[in-house]
Amino acid sequence: MPFPYKKMTEEDFDAIRAITAPARVKVGAEIEREYYHDEMPEYGVFAPELFVEVLDKEEVSGIMKYAYDQNIPVVVRGAGTGLAGGANCKYGGIMMSVMKMNKLVCLDKANMTITAQPGMLLTDVAAAAAAEGLFYPPDPGERTASIGGNVITNAGGMRAVRYGLTRDFVRCIEAVLPDGAVVQFSSNVVKNTTGYDIKDLVIGSEGTLCVLTEVTLKLMPMPKFTRTLVMPYGDLASCIDLVPELLKLSAVPTAIEFLERELIDIVERNLHKMLPVKEGEAVLIVMYDAGSEQELVNACDEAAEAALASGALDVYVADTPERIASIWSVRGAILEGMKAESIAQEECDVVVPRSRIAEYVRIAKAIGQKYNIRVEPCGHAGDGNIHTEMLRGEGMSDEDWLNGTRACLQELYATSKAFGGQLSGEHGIGNGRLEYLKPFVGERMYKLYQSIKLAFDEKLILNPGKILVFDE
Amino acid sequence: MPFPYKKMTEEDFDAIRAITAPARVKVGAEIEREYYHDEMPEYGVFAPELFVEVLDKEEVSGIMKYAYDQNIPVVVRGAGTGLAGGANCKYGGIMMSVMKMNKLVCLDKANMTITAQPGMLLTDVAAAAAAEGLFYPPDPGERTASIGGNVITNAGGMRAVRYGLTRDFVRCIEAVLPDGAVVQFSSNVVKNTTGYDIKDLVIGSEGTLCVLTEVTLKLMPMPKFTRTLVMPYGDLASCIDLVPELLKLSAVPTAIEFLERELIDIVERNLHKMLPVKEGEAVLIVMYDAGSEQELVNACDEAAEAALASGALDVYVADTPERIASIWSVRGAILEGMKAESIAQEECDVVVPRSRIAEYVRIAKAIGQKYNIRVEPCGHAGDGNIHTEMLRGEGMSDEDWLNGTRACLQELYATSKAFGGQLSGEHGIGNGRLEYLKPFVGERMYKLYQSIKLAFDEKLILNPGKILVFDE
Repeated sequence: MPFPYKKMTEEDFDAIRAITAPARVKVGAEIEREYYHDEMPEYGVFAPELFVEVLDKEEVSGIMKYAYDQNIPVVVRGAGTGLAGGANCKYGGIMMSVMKMNKLVCLDKANMTITAQPGMLLTDVAAAAAAEGLFYPPDPGERTASIGGNVITNAGGMRAVRYGLTRDFVRCIEAVLPDGAVVQFSSNVVKNTTGYDIKDLVIGSEGTLCVLTEVTLKLMPMPKFTRTLVMPYGDLASCIDLVPELLKLSAVPTAIEFLERELIDIVERNLHKMLPVKEGEAVLIVMYDAGSEQELVNACDEAAEAALASGALDVYVADTPERIASIWSVRGAILEGMKAESIAQEECDVVVPRSRIAEYVRIAKAIGQKYNIRVEPCGHAGDGNIHTEMLRGEGMSDEDWLNGTRACLQELYATSKAFGGQLSGEHGIGNGRLEYLKPFVGERMYKLYQSIKLAFDEKLILNPGKILVFDE
Repeated sequence: MPFPYKKMTEEDFDAIRAITAPARVKVGAEIEREYYHDEMPEYGVFAPELFVEVLDKEEVSGIMKYAYDQNIPVVVRGAGTGLAGGANCKYGGIMMSVMKMNKLVCLDKANMTITAQPGMLLTDVAAAAAAEGLFYPPDPGERTASIGGNVITNAGGMRAVRYGLTRDFVRCIEAVLPDGAVVQFSSNVVKNTTGYDIKDLVIGSEGTLCVLTEVTLKLMPMPKFTRTLVMPYGDLASCIDLVPELLKLSAVPTAIEFLERELIDIVERNLHKMLPVKEGEAVLIVMYDAGSEQELVNACDEAAEAALASGALDVYVADTPERIASIWSVRGAILEGMKAESIAQEECDVVVPRSRIAEYVRIAKAIGQKYNIRVEPCGHAGDGNIHTEMLRGEGMSDEDWLNGTRACLQELYATSKAFGGQLSGEHGIGNGRLEYLKPFVGERMYKLYQSIKLAFDEKLILNPGKILVFDE
């Protein structure tokens, strides 16, 4: 085991300046505090010893070679929008920002792919594709995220029901291994059985196996027509029961989200974004895309019919960009609404089989009540991924909040496991869910994770202490 | 390094009989010769020391524990239809057949999944889904393959253009590790960022990392309408040039295959299966599925228009099951046709970026001419996966055939690499392509593959000598 890591010296600082450029290196107190944590400071605030912005894979390789030789930990950072406490320097060392590696390398129209450096923003990737009439579907809410961050965390998002996750769009990865070697996982091909599928192993590995330096992503034809339906129900269970019915219809919905009235009220009250549907204790929001208007109309008609047959109080159809945007703006404002209603939040990101969502939500609320924690579940009904938000009221003591949320989380994870679900659907483990992983997956699987980590990074210098810990 | 492996003794035979049942164990000369090799005896014929049929995961676990303790290699075998020399006992030891583990465990209509034991046939999986109005799309030609074999080799097939590979349908894997531990990779959920994505690493690992004991697969609604178009062209290049155009249209084709006239002639001459289109030096065969007739007609109209605009001589539309079947029966008979035209075959399974197919085919033929080897490329135009078949004529000496095919393969792989392609698109490495892997992926990647193999199987007892070798 490589612990303890080397404490960085002036000599190390100079070495990194020599590999890159003095103007792109900061040390100690020069480093802005925002680089101490990601979007969830609750999951860790740690000072890097050195912060460096890299420009190309040669610099990444040079830094990794040096860090490997000197036993210095390295954490790669994109836009810092992660929600798992992944991009922080838990053991000090180097924070390497790839945000200046933000170029569009190539948009290949014949193969319908885009190749980008990791620091390119998701929104810029989507825009570059759209400029050519092409579509990059993954849409994990936070569009100012970097594309490298999306790939390394396998970002999900609402459109996953029809189009899949970030993983499903990654054709090829160029990366630097912990020892500085530059390698490529797969290439711009549609299928590949050449050796082990390391590309998929690396996707979602949260910066613990290698450093991305270039990603090639699949694009699709831009869907020409879209509509969003809002289906209010008297109760959540009947609302959720529609989900498997919708998925059996011939048109696959692009997105299926559920919201309970309590959450809609929070958004309307705090942010004055109004859902056009006032009735119902729970609503299902369903999006359809299609290549022709006829196809779209058929899909929506079929869905509306199924909804009404299953007890929907009404079906509201939004078919103009403005109406569609206003519905999704309510869904998109949930986190903001909850922040306005509480002084702190904790979040649980389980995924359960789709058929168990309603049951999970009911139990989640009961668990919250038991520990006196306000629990608001919402999320991706189409893929069983429920963001169970916990809200801290003003009067709550630190101790009650910490003990209460921890007790809730343990029970929520146990419920997910009992239902055949998983600990995290799209936010990942990072530092924030570290303590819950081993009990969830079991000793043998945890040991296998450790072996895989060591197969890439036997000195444990890349984003150490994330996903996994080793006995020190 | 664990070499040499233990030579099995009577005591070992008895131990395996005690874990399973004497009636399901054969040793030495009792073992049928078909178990010495897979569908490609060219890629290895090796005698197992013991052959056993297992019934459940407890038996699999018991055998692995014993083999792990005693240092005996184990090779798992499904239906034996592999094309890479994967399922043979290169180092003797135990051949474990899972063909009696062929039960349907569960068809979950609410979650639209099917859970099967690994020995269930692909055709039975598809039929069980169809009986409930559901669809299991992967269709890698050989429908008598086992579903476990399909998963462990990431089988591809014609419908991959629209629906993806076997990988894209695997929700969950239950497996036994080399030390006998029973583990589960993911669960019946749509997305998962809990720890490393071992599920995808295991898919396509050709039995070298673990033994599958159960797989859960995603199903889809059965498409209601289907048509197949045949588009003849004056030359291959313009035929292939249509592929990116088709993929830009709003409807995604289910399958896009290309055939040159020479291959069509081989099938028609030897097997009397007739393509309904007589003109053209090259044809594109394109399948569309849709949920409504209107959608299907739109898709086919758009495709036909694009074909005629790009120089297709005609567009033949097959819209009855009989006509559709007759077209696909020609495509499906290629291997058989080539076997009738030659006394031996060698095959190269590269995948290249879709835009480079025509160029690759031209070069492949030139390479064949250079070494006096008859080369017939055909395959999956929609995903760039070209099966470059080499045919041995009657007059050719063993030496000329072996040297010629090896020289051809080296140049074909080099061409694929230069084009940004891969060594194997869907058949895998096994024993047959072993020598070509390291030069193709490079030393550092090969070392990473080895580290991953060791992370699962540090004693190298599971299907040793496949995909990778270690210095002995």
